[in-house]
Amino acid sequence: MVKVGIVGGTGYTGVELLRLLAAHPQAELCAITSRADAELPVSQMFPSLRGRVDLAFSHPDEAHLDQCDVVFFATPNGIAMQQVRALLDAGVKVIDLAADFRIKDVAEWEKWYGMSHACPDLVAEAVYGLPEVNRDKIKNARLIANPGCYPTAVQLGFIPLLEAGVIEQSSLIADSKSGVSGAGRKAEVHALFSEAGDNFKAYGVAGHRHLPEIKQGLANVTGESVGLTFVPHLTPLIRGIHATLYGRLTKDVDLQALFEQRYAGEPFVDVLPAGGMPETRSVRGSNICRIAVHRPQGGDTVVVLSVIDNLVKGAAGQAVQNMNIMFGLPEKTGIDLVPLLP
Amino acid sequence: MVKVGIVGGTGYTGVELLRLLAAHPQAELCAITSRADAELPVSQMFPSLRGRVDLAFSHPDEAHLDQCDVVFFATPNGIAMQQVRALLDAGVKVIDLAADFRIKDVAEWEKWYGMSHACPDLVAEAVYGLPEVNRDKIKNARLIANPGCYPTAVQLGFIPLLEAGVIEQSSLIADSKSGVSGAGRKAEVHALFSEAGDNFKAYGVAGHRHLPEIKQGLANVTGESVGLTFVPHLTPLIRGIHATLYGRLTKDVDLQALFEQRYAGEPFVDVLPAGGMPETRSVRGSNICRIAVHRPQGGDTVVVLSVIDNLVKGAAGQAVQNMNIMFGLPEKTGIDLVPLLP
Amino acid sequence: MVKVGIVGGTGYTGVELLRLLAAHPQAELCAITSRADAELPVSQMFPSLRGRVDLAFSHPDEAHLDQCDVVFFATPNGIAMQQVRALLDAGVKVIDLAADFRIKDVAEWEKWYGMSHACPDLVAEAVYGLPEVNRDKIKNARLIANPGCYPTAVQLGFIPLLEAGVIEQSSLIADSKSGVSGAGRKAEVHALFSEAGDNFKAYGVAGHRHLPEIKQGLANVTGESVGLTFVPHLTPLIRGIHATLYGRLTKDVDLQALFEQRYAGEPFVDVLPAGGMPETRSVRGSNICRIAVHRPQGGDTVVVLSVIDNLVKGAAGQAVQNMNIMFGLPEKTGIDLVPLLP
Amino acid sequence: MVKVGIVGGTGYTGVELLRLLAAHPQAELCAITSRADAELPVSQMFPSLRGRVDLAFSHPDEAHLDQCDVVFFATPNGIAMQQVRALLDAGVKVIDLAADFRIKDVAEWEKWYGMSHACPDLVAEAVYGLPEVNRDKIKNARLIANPGCYPTAVQLGFIPLLEAGVIEQSSLIADSKSGVSGAGRKAEVHALFSEAGDNFKAYGVAGHRHLPEIKQGLANVTGESVGLTFVPHLTPLIRGIHATLYGRLTKDVDLQALFEQRYAGEPFVDVLPAGGMPETRSVRGSNICRIAVHRPQGGDTVVVLSVIDNLVKGAAGQAVQNMNIMFGLPEKTGIDLVPLLP
Repeated sequence: MVKVGIVGGTGYTGVELLRLLAAHPQAELCAITSRADAELPVSQMFPSLRGRVDLAFSHPDEAHLDQCDVVFFATPNGIAMQQVRALLDAGVKVIDLAADFRIKDVAEWEKWYGMSHACPDLVAEAVYGLPEVNRDKIKNARLIANPGCYPTAVQLGFIPLLEAGVIEQSSLIADSKSGVSGAGRKAEVHALFSEAGDNFKAYGVAGHRHLPEIKQGLANVTGESVGLTFVPHLTPLIRGIHATLYGRLTKDVDLQALFEQRYAGEPFVDVLPAGGMPETRSVRGSNICRIAVHRPQGGDTVVVLSVIDNLVKGAAGQAVQNMNIMFGLPEKTGIDLVPLLP
Repeated sequence: MVKVGIVGGTGYTGVELLRLLAAHPQAELCAITSRADAELPVSQMFPSLRGRVDLAFSHPDEAHLDQCDVVFFATPNGIAMQQVRALLDAGVKVIDLAADFRIKDVAEWEKWYGMSHACPDLVAEAVYGLPEVNRDKIKNARLIANPGCYPTAVQLGFIPLLEAGVIEQSSLIADSKSGVSGAGRKAEVHALFSEAGDNFKAYGVAGHRHLPEIKQGLANVTGESVGLTFVPHLTPLIRGIHATLYGRLTKDVDLQALFEQRYAGEPFVDVLPAGGMPETRSVRGSNICRIAVHRPQGGDTVVVLSVIDNLVKGAAGQAVQNMNIMFGLPEKTGIDLVPLLP
Repeated sequence: MVKVGIVGGTGYTGVELLRLLAAHPQAELCAITSRADAELPVSQMFPSLRGRVDLAFSHPDEAHLDQCDVVFFATPNGIAMQQVRALLDAGVKVIDLAADFRIKDVAEWEKWYGMSHACPDLVAEAVYGLPEVNRDKIKNARLIANPGCYPTAVQLGFIPLLEAGVIEQSSLIADSKSGVSGAGRKAEVHALFSEAGDNFKAYGVAGHRHLPEIKQGLANVTGESVGLTFVPHLTPLIRGIHATLYGRLTKDVDLQALFEQRYAGEPFVDVLPAGGMPETRSVRGSNICRIAVHRPQGGDTVVVLSVIDNLVKGAAGQAVQNMNIMFGLPEKTGIDLVPLLP
Repeated sequence: MVKVGIVGGTGYTGVELLRLLAAHPQAELCAITSRADAELPVSQMFPSLRGRVDLAFSHPDEAHLDQCDVVFFATPNGIAMQQVRALLDAGVKVIDLAADFRIKDVAEWEKWYGMSHACPDLVAEAVYGLPEVNRDKIKNARLIANPGCYPTAVQLGFIPLLEAGVIEQSSLIADSKSGVSGAGRKAEVHALFSEAGDNFKAYGVAGHRHLPEIKQGLANVTGESVGLTFVPHLTPLIRGIHATLYGRLTKDVDLQALFEQRYAGEPFVDVLPAGGMPETRSVRGSNICRIAVHRPQGGDTVVVLSVIDNLVKGAAGQAVQNMNIMFGLPEKTGIDLVPLLP
């Protein structure tokens, strides 16, 4: 059994980790911390967990996280970087679901996140936890930077094209739509039901923190920088990301075969048959990314459709997938869930 | 392994049975029939099942259902009664998720359902599959009438009060609200997104088919007929029933203790602590019924709040629960799911 | 032209007042105050008003409200009572959309609202602004207590029955459902899209501030106190209240005729034909209350269904209706809107 | 008063026409036809119109449409072309909200719509009813082809850029999202609440009927054909289209000024200030198109955001706007509505 701790379990990635770990046959949930809600039974905040999670939230100072095998940080940005070193020194592996260790260029990170980084050396050590790219490195990592939700959907969609060198690298477009849970469980007006419901809008067009993360990931594929226009949108659903990706083809190629071959062995990437159009609910509650590739009207624009559940493959599920890899467990353990439809 | 067949798997109770059975460790899905969609791979209609259900829909004549151990009918009302006798004769157990065997008074059934019953003798034999009431009879049944969604939520809420004889039996009120999936996966204008979305309404106030089913179930508890006003409403959510039940107290009693004791050993009924108010999402995707009991302002009106997922405890989950009981499996096998929140 | 001021225009009742007054042919919008957002153009906060409202929010001290003919308070409870006297003294009429002047029993008000009342004498003077009951008093009022949303829907449904003396007054039940805009435009977790969406729940079962308001209104009808169980619920729609009302009949009466006669001359109450079931969207964006009355299965329980748009007839629209009455304008002026369906 | 007839009023564009015309001070609604629902009072199908529309649906043969001044066709594609000639011959003007007269290349139309055209000569005569482009021609037209919903949002967004010649014409991308009312009021499974709710998907990626309409409109701007990738998506809201448009800049230009100047005099196009991001609800129920233009990260990709209410500016509102122009009425008459927010 892997002894697990969670720091900051009162947000949506936190409760999703709890949902997954409560049913994980090889994980033992030892502690979950929350400064604000210490001593409150977890199931009182999240009644869906009644009878499944008997823990109460612990004060961080009393959680004995150093006795865990792995600690997940489901905290706001800037928290994990304060606490990770002590845990690593104590021999605890760490998976950070926030952004503290995602961007290798620390100056770039500091620009987008508006704070100084507390441990640049650990940024260098951290492994970006996208198993479809970094599975081998993840196996031996002490510290995982769990990818963002948009970056997961967008990278998985572009990677086959960039690896094969069949699209212009300078003019990528990622038109992305996210459910409102992506905004977190914070009391903010813009995420109210009466604001986000029955409404659709773009946001962050001038610049979104996931832009440098995606550009870094895509540049790693080919060794050259990419030009990317990334426009996120808020759509009135709770869970789900749909990325519609556009690239300009530079070579004629069997796109369907390209995608099928790239993801042939992947347990959590499903390439739809030619002509398919994945819908977000087809992955609701599951760790699957479903992808389809199109070439409309036979033109030179390739369109990739990529969907994930932002809280699972885009956050907690991918984190557990990383945990499974790090501890030598079968990769699907505890996250082999059938999507909830309707 | 229990060999399972499903008749009529293209509706919401059908796909929900598939979701549950695909992950059930003791069930082997052998056949699923659909006259209209014969030969279509199941996962093409329901992409959420890609990689989980490899079957195609079979034509009813070619499905060899008589070789199954149990057959679920997820069909419109009036179909199962035509086919059940042959299956029972072949030694196959049957669980009907439609209404064909729910009402013992055949004349009453024929009045509400507008057709002649094909096998009144089997109505007499059928066991009403509400495990919290009929667990022992279910164990040895050949034919289960799986309860309706509203009847499950309403009966579980009223039963402790009626068994204890603490409310007037003649003036019960069940104000019930259902998500739109309760209307099924039929192409009907009233269930369109643009009709049912951002909208709330009552329907069937003059009389709803679940009324006689609920009255029968409640009358069985005390041996006397009950007076019930049942008002169903349509609310813009996909899954979930919330029943708000009103009764007039005739005795002073510790209501909280009454409910806790009644459901103490039940694996799928959760009585909330005093003051609790269950929300439908706290059971989304799970087989749980959560119940709270209130006595507002200390008056003589008792208010019970009862929530279920209409497709799980209100349909497919309860059907699998019945299967587990019939085949001597641990009752939670395959349906011990953590609710999906948010 | 009536010169209008609004205090506290950044919530949903505020923006709804603006929507209505911007198109009102006899109203001139002179000032709208907000301490927190002073100097922000209104249309920047509410882009739906671009080109329709050119004002910026004013600091309360600089709004010159005493030069208005009428001032609407769209503020949290407890604000209006601090400011009303000065306005009245300056000859300005006041319509308070909050609860400060709704409850005549000041001690009762202080118990439910948790504060001391600043001007009990003005409570005594204030007219409860339900035109269907108090039209004549409203004409000459200086100070209007605009009714709450639930109280409007519930009272309009019960009044014909109580006036006619055909139901038991001691055992009324009001099972009420509200869209999420009823919770206001405040940053609170429970009203987030990912909390309130795809979810249904009761709240305030033990006691809700609208309970004493409804009881007072109903008691005024007959001169005796009433027994009322009031259970509010939150349903995932933006606008709309649906009240399902239950009473025990004590006399045989033509219920349909009773309702039609009671509301025969009312411009904003629509009694549906027998058998009707009003849906909330049929009044979306309009000032109409639609009502239907049923007697299910011919029993002795009467069921009334009453729907309003909580932001219009339940708040801003009724406030403008009161203004029209107070200033001798045709009652429908500016609020004769066709509902938005779908 | 303009005497108005409507053919086929039982869909969403039909009921929206009724909503607008019921309150239009210069329109007299004379007849509304429906073969299937003849003699049914309109307000029985659409209770939102109770007290506002007293007509019943007429059988087409008895509607005396030839006595109208103008007839709107809110019918499925292929109906108007059968009936228009007789009306024109009788001196009646016609506005077709379907697609029969939108595409000038009849062979192209026949390919996309799968039927033979009944009156190619009238296609040649018909004026494409986008007032921002064709206002003068509309004034004198007998027959208007009212634009599609996507084409309205997309063309209004691209036109300033193409007219100014500042983007590559060969590589336009229109990533468009529509609310579900765009699918009409037809009983189809894919548009059910439980299918389209809490879900997001692309559709018609290989080719959508609005593609040739948009390409025709944009080609008319510059006299050359354009290359366009058009990907429509279904998003869970009732009303609203959000088009996110991408072009490659070929010249440096003040984009904000370009848009503001192009639409300076337009009553129904609102260019947001620099940095703005329009949301669909900011135009809900109104005839406005709101547009913002961005150049993310200072790159050579221009991003235009364009929102409309698909049933108003995308259908019925634009049709009434065309009627106003044709009959010499002030263009805003009857459609100068304040959007409904929230």
